[in-house]
Amino acid sequence: MAINVLAGGSVTAPKGFRAGAAMAGVKTPGRYDVTIVYSAAEASMAAVFTTNKVKAAPVLASMEHLAANQGKGRAVVFNSGCANACTGDKGMADAGDMARAAAQALGCAAEEVLVASTGVIGAYLPMDRILAGIGDAAKAMDAGNGALAAKAIMTTDTTPKEVAVEVDVAGSKVAFGAMAKGSGMIHPDMATLLAMVATDCAIEPAPLREALREACDATFNMVTVDGDTSTNDCLFALANGQAGNPLIRAGGDPGYAEFVEGLTEVCRHLAQLIARDGEGATKFIEVKVKGAKTRQDARSAAKAVAGSSLVKAAIYGKDANWGRILCAMGYSGADFDPDAVDLYIGDLLMMDKGKALLFDEEKALALLEKDEIHILAELHQGDETATAWGCDLTHDYVTINGSYRT
Amino acid sequence: MAINVLAGGSVTAPKGFRAGAAMAGVKTPGRYDVTIVYSAAEASMAAVFTTNKVKAAPVLASMEHLAANQGKGRAVVFNSGCANACTGDKGMADAGDMARAAAQALGCAAEEVLVASTGVIGAYLPMDRILAGIGDAAKAMDAGNGALAAKAIMTTDTTPKEVAVEVDVAGSKVAFGAMAKGSGMIHPDMATLLAMVATDCAIEPAPLREALREACDATFNMVTVDGDTSTNDCLFALANGQAGNPLIRAGGDPGYAEFVEGLTEVCRHLAQLIARDGEGATKFIEVKVKGAKTRQDARSAAKAVAGSSLVKAAIYGKDANWGRILCAMGYSGADFDPDAVDLYIGDLLMMDKGKALLFDEEKALALLEKDEIHILAELHQGDETATAWGCDLTHDYVTINGSYRT
Repeated sequence: MAINVLAGGSVTAPKGFRAGAAMAGVKTPGRYDVTIVYSAAEASMAAVFTTNKVKAAPVLASMEHLAANQGKGRAVVFNSGCANACTGDKGMADAGDMARAAAQALGCAAEEVLVASTGVIGAYLPMDRILAGIGDAAKAMDAGNGALAAKAIMTTDTTPKEVAVEVDVAGSKVAFGAMAKGSGMIHPDMATLLAMVATDCAIEPAPLREALREACDATFNMVTVDGDTSTNDCLFALANGQAGNPLIRAGGDPGYAEFVEGLTEVCRHLAQLIARDGEGATKFIEVKVKGAKTRQDARSAAKAVAGSSLVKAAIYGKDANWGRILCAMGYSGADFDPDAVDLYIGDLLMMDKGKALLFDEEKALALLEKDEIHILAELHQGDETATAWGCDLTHDYVTINGSYRT
Repeated sequence: MAINVLAGGSVTAPKGFRAGAAMAGVKTPGRYDVTIVYSAAEASMAAVFTTNKVKAAPVLASMEHLAANQGKGRAVVFNSGCANACTGDKGMADAGDMARAAAQALGCAAEEVLVASTGVIGAYLPMDRILAGIGDAAKAMDAGNGALAAKAIMTTDTTPKEVAVEVDVAGSKVAFGAMAKGSGMIHPDMATLLAMVATDCAIEPAPLREALREACDATFNMVTVDGDTSTNDCLFALANGQAGNPLIRAGGDPGYAEFVEGLTEVCRHLAQLIARDGEGATKFIEVKVKGAKTRQDARSAAKAVAGSSLVKAAIYGKDANWGRILCAMGYSGADFDPDAVDLYIGDLLMMDKGKALLFDEEKALALLEKDEIHILAELHQGDETATAWGCDLTHDYVTINGSYRT
């Protein structure tokens, strides 16, 4: 299937989506920190949320609104700089007030608005500035503001993360526009902190949920930066039907497979951008595990390698200490026979059927000098495959996280 | 019960234990890297081994010898500088040869000797040097060499780790002498890389195993440095009966409770030493979780906090970013109500029944300036408690692990 990347595309690339952003002064002055993405036409909505037992107030509020409005709605309001987590009843009231303020400014119901916050945990939102920012963002609503929205959700991110693609869904051109933030506290168990996909596809909430779960499992759930699953993880999808394709009512309907493919593509793109922009990262790491008995084995092994502090530090130091890769697979919970494993860094075989090879250190160093490191483990136990993404563990990660609040 | 710490005590403090060490040239010249600890009198032996699916050859060899000799034996031979892991059939032969060489030099059977190796994974042992070192160590056997043995098992450790205590077991004075190494790849799921307890207690293998498991669960299994469970973790216990106490045949026998207490004490001491000497660490972190519904909940929550890269980096940076503590408990798998949690750093309450407090930043900074950081979470869900130990995540950890092989 052809997936066309839309150059310069953002979350507002699909028909009927607009965005507005404001500098509310939650982050340092001069940085966008409040944004709203809005479809005037009612959209099917779906979301996946963090599995952390500690769920931030905006996560709980969004869950309520999604349920109350049966998967329909029109907007998501975001702020960065403060996560509104561990904030008790006041935090819940604040999250509700954010939705109400956005709804009032946009002329819709509060239940049609989802809420997302990112930043320091355990601090209260400066509600006067947030509400003023929501008012400003609503006034600035425009189809050309997608890029500003992606900027407004950044925290320690060094680059905004956005992408748009177009696919053919049962004869209609359907666009997907998506944005995400995330750089630290990245080890999503459902989705990563603040990602959103807008699409003009006509699709009902149930198949949208199903598609979003599938795309998320293969993409955001395979990224790790530091093993910490956030309290605020949310991935939202809004589908407003403006593409004019025949309405997708269920998973088997014409166009559903293409829809999932487009959705997965934008999610994968954002997931990789998050790994590339991992806090302090100098290298992007892709770990592919092939030949596993079950898909879960492949996923667990790949994610354990991508998440290992020791593997990550070795890659930062350009040290082909591949024993740590096998060690991480070993404690991952995946079922495999260590004596059957072939292990590659790039195209260089380090271990052949469980046996250490005397590899060419110069060739290994040349591979590890690159910005992208590819690790492949062939388990020879079955046919299942998984890919995980991560980044190296660097001095800068420690610096950033030793002084996050200041 | 009185536990007397034996000043200057080492693994050879109990009656009838001797040690020898050698500089075999596996590590850099001038460093001890091979050692044997030996009891001429037959000892009950027990061990806990790594749960990593990838088990090093010496782990597999020790498992075989323990089983073949039904929990009886006389010696453990150690080397540092090379882990003999991921080395296939040759590695197994090498581990067997280490035991055979030690047995021959000591005049016992190979099955009476356990084997342990630590160092780089995926490299082969330099067997000529190892075997020469085993010969030298066997010749140097002396009750005064316990401290040398602790030095010979060090890798990135900055200090040797040893302790000895004496307790009263059913009217007899029983001594425990213990040593450990461990600084990185520390997240034991059974025991940590290379620890050994010698005791002159008279106790049969079955209750010794039971006691070791109990002590290990409360101590070594509650330490984490970097979340990576090693391929070589082993904790050995040898009990040679020279104390003359009435033989402990089962868990309920007189003196068993005191035995467990003494054993747990030396294990706890070593576990804390490992956390204090975590690679690159500047601070020791103790995390206590009280009021959990189940012991497993308390353990999971405490260990997740001690293991969180973000908590560890914040403590390194003296940043009272306590939201990360609650976040880590939230993804730990422990069952609790976030709105019931009281959270302290030192004696400073940061969160009261799930609500963020405006705490005194100067007081928090003063607490975080210390070398020991105490975190307490009171869950108010039940009566179970657990304590975990760890260390901060520092620039030096990254430096050490970016160039481990060189």
